[in-house]
Amino acid sequence: MSLLTAPSTSSGSEKDRSAASVADVPTGSGPDGATERVGAAADRLTGLGAGLRRALDGQFAGQREAARESFPTERLHREPGQSIEEARDWVLARLAELSDAGFGAAGIITGAEDTPDPAAAVVAFEMLAHGDLSTLIKSGVQFGLFGGAVTNLGTSWHHDTFMPDITSLKLLGCFAMTELGHGSDVAGIETTITYVPESDEFEVLSETPGATKAYIGNAARDGSMAVVFGQLLVRGRNHGVHAILVPIRDADGSDLPGVTTGDQGLKGGLLGIDNGTIRFDRVRVPRRMLLDRYGGVDDTGTYHAEIDNPNRRFFTMLGTLVRGRVCIAAGGGIAARRALSIATRYGLERRQFTAPGRPDGVILLDYLTHQRRLLPAIARSYAFGFAQNELTAALVRIQGGGEHTERDQRELETRAAGLKAMTTRFANDTIQVCREACGGAGYMSGNALVGLRADADIFATFEGDNTVLLQLVAKALLTEYKQVWGDLDRVGMVQATARVVGQTVLERTAANVLIERLVATARRRSEDLTMVDRGWHALMFDERERHSLESLARRMRRASRGDFEAVNRLQDHMLFVARAHLERVTLEAFIAGIDACTDPEARQALERLCSLYALSSINEDRAWYLEHSRISTGRAKAIGAQINALCLELRPVALPLVEGLGVPESWLGADFLAR
Amino acid sequence: MSLLTAPSTSSGSEKDRSAASVADVPTGSGPDGATERVGAAADRLTGLGAGLRRALDGQFAGQREAARESFPTERLHREPGQSIEEARDWVLARLAELSDAGFGAAGIITGAEDTPDPAAAVVAFEMLAHGDLSTLIKSGVQFGLFGGAVTNLGTSWHHDTFMPDITSLKLLGCFAMTELGHGSDVAGIETTITYVPESDEFEVLSETPGATKAYIGNAARDGSMAVVFGQLLVRGRNHGVHAILVPIRDADGSDLPGVTTGDQGLKGGLLGIDNGTIRFDRVRVPRRMLLDRYGGVDDTGTYHAEIDNPNRRFFTMLGTLVRGRVCIAAGGGIAARRALSIATRYGLERRQFTAPGRPDGVILLDYLTHQRRLLPAIARSYAFGFAQNELTAALVRIQGGGEHTERDQRELETRAAGLKAMTTRFANDTIQVCREACGGAGYMSGNALVGLRADADIFATFEGDNTVLLQLVAKALLTEYKQVWGDLDRVGMVQATARVVGQTVLERTAANVLIERLVATARRRSEDLTMVDRGWHALMFDERERHSLESLARRMRRASRGDFEAVNRLQDHMLFVARAHLERVTLEAFIAGIDACTDPEARQALERLCSLYALSSINEDRAWYLEHSRISTGRAKAIGAQINALCLELRPVALPLVEGLGVPESWLGADFLAR
Repeated sequence: MSLLTAPSTSSGSEKDRSAASVADVPTGSGPDGATERVGAAADRLTGLGAGLRRALDGQFAGQREAARESFPTERLHREPGQSIEEARDWVLARLAELSDAGFGAAGIITGAEDTPDPAAAVVAFEMLAHGDLSTLIKSGVQFGLFGGAVTNLGTSWHHDTFMPDITSLKLLGCFAMTELGHGSDVAGIETTITYVPESDEFEVLSETPGATKAYIGNAARDGSMAVVFGQLLVRGRNHGVHAILVPIRDADGSDLPGVTTGDQGLKGGLLGIDNGTIRFDRVRVPRRMLLDRYGGVDDTGTYHAEIDNPNRRFFTMLGTLVRGRVCIAAGGGIAARRALSIATRYGLERRQFTAPGRPDGVILLDYLTHQRRLLPAIARSYAFGFAQNELTAALVRIQGGGEHTERDQRELETRAAGLKAMTTRFANDTIQVCREACGGAGYMSGNALVGLRADADIFATFEGDNTVLLQLVAKALLTEYKQVWGDLDRVGMVQATARVVGQTVLERTAANVLIERLVATARRRSEDLTMVDRGWHALMFDERERHSLESLARRMRRASRGDFEAVNRLQDHMLFVARAHLERVTLEAFIAGIDACTDPEARQALERLCSLYALSSINEDRAWYLEHSRISTGRAKAIGAQINALCLELRPVALPLVEGLGVPESWLGADFLAR
Repeated sequence: MSLLTAPSTSSGSEKDRSAASVADVPTGSGPDGATERVGAAADRLTGLGAGLRRALDGQFAGQREAARESFPTERLHREPGQSIEEARDWVLARLAELSDAGFGAAGIITGAEDTPDPAAAVVAFEMLAHGDLSTLIKSGVQFGLFGGAVTNLGTSWHHDTFMPDITSLKLLGCFAMTELGHGSDVAGIETTITYVPESDEFEVLSETPGATKAYIGNAARDGSMAVVFGQLLVRGRNHGVHAILVPIRDADGSDLPGVTTGDQGLKGGLLGIDNGTIRFDRVRVPRRMLLDRYGGVDDTGTYHAEIDNPNRRFFTMLGTLVRGRVCIAAGGGIAARRALSIATRYGLERRQFTAPGRPDGVILLDYLTHQRRLLPAIARSYAFGFAQNELTAALVRIQGGGEHTERDQRELETRAAGLKAMTTRFANDTIQVCREACGGAGYMSGNALVGLRADADIFATFEGDNTVLLQLVAKALLTEYKQVWGDLDRVGMVQATARVVGQTVLERTAANVLIERLVATARRRSEDLTMVDRGWHALMFDERERHSLESLARRMRRASRGDFEAVNRLQDHMLFVARAHLERVTLEAFIAGIDACTDPEARQALERLCSLYALSSINEDRAWYLEHSRISTGRAKAIGAQINALCLELRPVALPLVEGLGVPESWLGADFLAR
C-alpha cells in the first residue's frame, strides 16, 4: 500500500483531536491574514514544497521517492513507555518486518558473487531514520557494522558462509570493537587474538577489565556471533588490529564457554538496542574465522598481508568501514529534519499574546525570535542535505565497484568523518531548539521531539567522537597541505595553500567552474558586493579555511614534534580549521545543488536559503573576519539585519520549506499534528 | 545520621567495581605525574575545595552546610527504568520522607501566625536538587506553587484552613495556571471564575478546549484540590486574572462533578510528576475559596480590591510568586554543578591515546579541547552561584518580612526572571557537554547524566519560557531607562544611561564601591590593562550593557508603538541587551564574592575562575566589541590564547574546583565513581 494515498493518515481530518492537541487553538493564518492550512496535502506535494524536495533529493531523487512510496509505515514509531524488554522485542520484530519489505539488508551482499549497492544501503538507512531510531541503529548494527565487517574484512568463504544468514536475520551479530578502556583509540585496544599453531586455531582473550568489549549492540541479548577486533599475535609478534568471528551464544541464548556477556541496561535513549559488554577468556575458534582479507595466517601458520606497513594496513581496514559514518551523518540529518518539520508546523499553528492588528494572537513563527530559531536551522538542514548527497555519491563511486585511487578513498573517509561530526552536532542542537520552540507541548513524549532528542544524542559519540573526528579532518588537511608545500618558503606556501584549498577534499562538484568564477570575481570586487552575493559568500568561506589552515600549518611546524603540550595547545585551532573546511564544502555543495535545480520557484527559495545559511555561518565567525580584516565593522554589523530580512522573506513559505525537507507530514508522529 | 561520616558511601573504597566502571582504567595522575586520587575525602573537604565551597556558599554557608549534613541520602536517586506508576509512587513516598526530615515545607508557613523563611525554603530546594529532580519538582509543585499561591494570594482564613494540611502533605494540590491555549500569556487565559450572587458562590468554567488547564503537576493523579487561575467576572464585569481554590477529586481519587482531569502521560523527563489536564464545567465553590488577598467579593456581592488598576493588580499578584523562579534558577544551577562534578572526575580518570612522554595514555582533562569544554563551564557555574546568592538574599529581604518598596519587588522579579533564563539555559547546555565529554559512559543511565539532562530540559520552559523571560528583562530595563531619560536629548540620554546602568537592577552589592572604582580606573587606561585585569572586565561588561541598551532605547523610540512588526524586528536586540545586563550583574556578584573571601588560596583560584568567566563572555561577544571599537583586533585575537592559558593554570586544581561547587562526591550517583 502506498502511504501517499492512505486516507486515514492524511492531514486535514478533524477527528481524533486529543485533549492536548494544539489543534484546539485557532488555525493559523499568515501575516496577511490568509488561512494557512498546515500540512494540507503534505504527502502529495505540489508547488514549491515538491520542487524543493526534488532539488534536495538531488541525484538520488528516484531512489528516495521510490523508497518513500514503498516504506511500510504501519508501526513507524515506537510507543514511549515500553519496558526495556518490550522495546527490544518490538525493535527486533520491526527490524524483521522492515527487512521483509526490503529496507533491511538493502544494498548488502548476500554472497561472494553479489555486488554491494551503497546508494541503496544509504537510502534505506535514511528511510529507517524517519521512524524509531532504535530500529534504525539495530539495522545499522546488524547490516552495516556486523554485515559490513564480514563483507569488507572477510573473503569469499566468509561471504558465502555468513552473509545469507546475516541478511535474512537468521544470524544476529555484534561489532565488537570498542573496549571499556579504549573508545576513540582503536589502535590501542587490548583484546588479543593469538594464533595457536598446535590446533591451527585462534585464541581470543580480554586479559584486563579494560579489554572488555563495551557498548556493543546485540551483545546483551540478541547476538549469537561477534566480529571481535583485537591485536593479532602470531608466533609472538603483534601484527596490529584484526577482526575475527567468534560465536558468543548458543541456540538457547546462553553464553558459550569462555564468553561472558553483560547487559548495560538503560541508556539515555535507543532503549530498543541491547548494548552490552563481552569478555573473552581464552576462547578458541578455527583459523578461518579470522576476517583475513587484509591479513591472516596461511596453511603453514605464517602471517601474510596484502599491505606490509601495519599502520597503513590498519587504516585501510578501518577505511573500508566508512559507510557507517556516511549513514550516521545521513541519519543525523534526517533526525534534524523531522524535528524542524514538527516545530515549524507547531510554530505556524500556535499563537501567543495579542498585538495591535492581531486580536486572535500572534502566530509564533511571526515573532522574530522564533524565526531566528527555526529558519536558519532549516537553511542549514538544506545545506547539509546537499553535502550529504555529494558524500553518498562519493561512497557510491568508491564502494560501488568503480575505479578509484587510494587518495579518493582517503578523501572519502575525511569527508565522512567531518560531515558525521557536523550533522550530528547540528541534529543534537536543532532537536533541542525545536523542543523548546514547542514549549510544554514539545516536552510531551507524544509529540516525538523528546524521544528523537534522547535517541539522537549518542550520534555525537558513536561511530567516532565528534571532537576526535574534527581533529582527524584537520590532520588530513595538514597532511595534504604538507604534501603540497613541503619545505616551501613563505610566499610559496601561500600559493600552495591556494592550490590545496581549491582541491581538497574529494573531487570538486559539477559546480566547480561556477564556484571558481564566483570566487575570482568576488575577490576583485570584495566589499562592493551585496551581502547576498553568492561570490562574496564563497570567497569568505574560502578565505576562512585558507587562512586558518595556513596559520595552523605554520604553528604546527613550529611546535616540536615530540612535545605533547605544544601540539595540544593547537587543538582549538584545529577544530576551527576543520569546521571552516566543512562549512566550505557544504556551501559549495549547496551552490552545486542550486545550479542543478531547474524549477524557478524552488530555485529562488534555495537561493534565499543558501544566503541565510552562508550569512549565519559568517555571522557566527564574524569576529574572526573582523580580526583578519576580511570584513569591515560596518558590514559586520549589517549581517544580523540581513539575516533578519531573509527570515522575513522566507517566513511566508515556511511550510513548503519544511515539506521540501522530505518528511511526509503523516510520518512525523507528533500528536498535535494528528488532525 | 550524618552523611559526611557514613563509611559505606565514602570514596576510596575499592570494592564493588562494576564491569562498566572507568575505575577499570588506570587511576589518573596529573600532568606532573603525581597521582591524583579523584574524590578522596570529597565529603570531608579540606584545603582548596573546602575554601572554595565556603566562599561559594557565601552568606548562606551556615544553612547550606547544616542542610548538607542532615540531608537524608538513602534514596537520593531514583532507579532509571521505573514505569510511570512506579515513578509516581516512588516520588510521592520520597517526598513524604524528605518532608519528615524537614526538607519539604522548609520555610513555608503552616498558619496565619507563622512567618515564612525564604532562605530556608530556597536552601531546602537546593538540597533537593541534588537528588531525583522529579522529587524536587513535586516538592516545588506542592509547597512552592500550590502552597505558595495559598500563602501569597490568600488571607488568614486560607492560611489557617489549608496550610497545615498542605505542609503535612495531607492535602496535595495543583497550581492550575497554564492552559492549552495560553502558556506565556497568563493575562490571556480563558478560564472564567464567575460570581453567582444567588448562591454566594463562584462558578469555574473552561468553556473552550484552549481553556483546559495543561501540564499541571499533581493533576493527573495525586491532587485533590487546585489553585485555579481565571478571569474573575463579577456582575458582568471582568476584573482580570484571580485565583480560586477548587476541590477536584474525592477521597477515592475520582474526579468531582464537573471536573474532568486528564493524564498527560510520558514526557521527556520528570517521569515521577503526574502532569495532567483539568477542565471545569461550571463547577461551583463557596465564595471564601477565592484567594482574595488582592481582590475579592465582599458580603454585599461587590468586587473590592486593594489595588485599583487591574494591570498593576495582576502583576502584583504574579509578583508574589517570584520564589518559584528563584528556586528554578537555583535548581538549574545545581543540576549543572552535578554534571560538571561528574564529568570532571571522569575526565581526571579516563585516559585515551598515548603521547610522547605519556605511555600510559593522556588523561582526558589534559587535552586542551577537554579543558575548553569543562573549565569555562565550571567558572560560569561559580559566577551564577554568586549571582544566585544575591538573588536569594534579595528574596529574603523582600519576602522575609522586612521593609521594601515596590521598586525593590519589581527589581527582584526582573532579576529572578533573568537569572532563571540564564541558569537553565546554562544547565541544559552544560549537562549535554558533560554527557558528551564522558563518551559512551555518559550515555549510560547509571552514570546519571542522561537522566539529569532529561529532567532539567523543561526548566527552560516552565516557570516562564526563557525567551519570553529575557524579553521581560529587556522591557524592564527600557522602562527604567525611560523613567530616567524621559524626553532628554542625545547628550542627556547618554548621561542618563550611565546612571541607569549603574543602578539597576536591585541594590548594588557590598562590592559596589569596589566595582565603581575598578571601572573608573579601567576607563582611563583601557587597552593598557592586561587581559586579566578585573577593571577591564567590569568596564567591558558595563559598556556592552550600556551601549546596547542605549541603542535599543533609541530604536524603540523610533518604532511606532502600534506597529507590531517594527517592534518585533527589535527582538534580537532585546535578547542581547537582557543577556548583557545579566552578564554584568553576574560578574559583579562574582567580584563581590571574591571580595568577601578571606581564604588566600581560595581567593586566588576564584580570581582565575572569574577571569575565565569574564573572558569567555567577552570572547563570545568579541565581534560586538570589535564592531563598537571597544577592543582592538590584536586584543580580540589574544583572548582565545588567554583563555587557554587560564585553563592550563586551573587544570591542576580541577578536582578542588568541582569540590568547591558543593556536591559531595558520594551524592553524585554515577556508577563509574562507585569505588
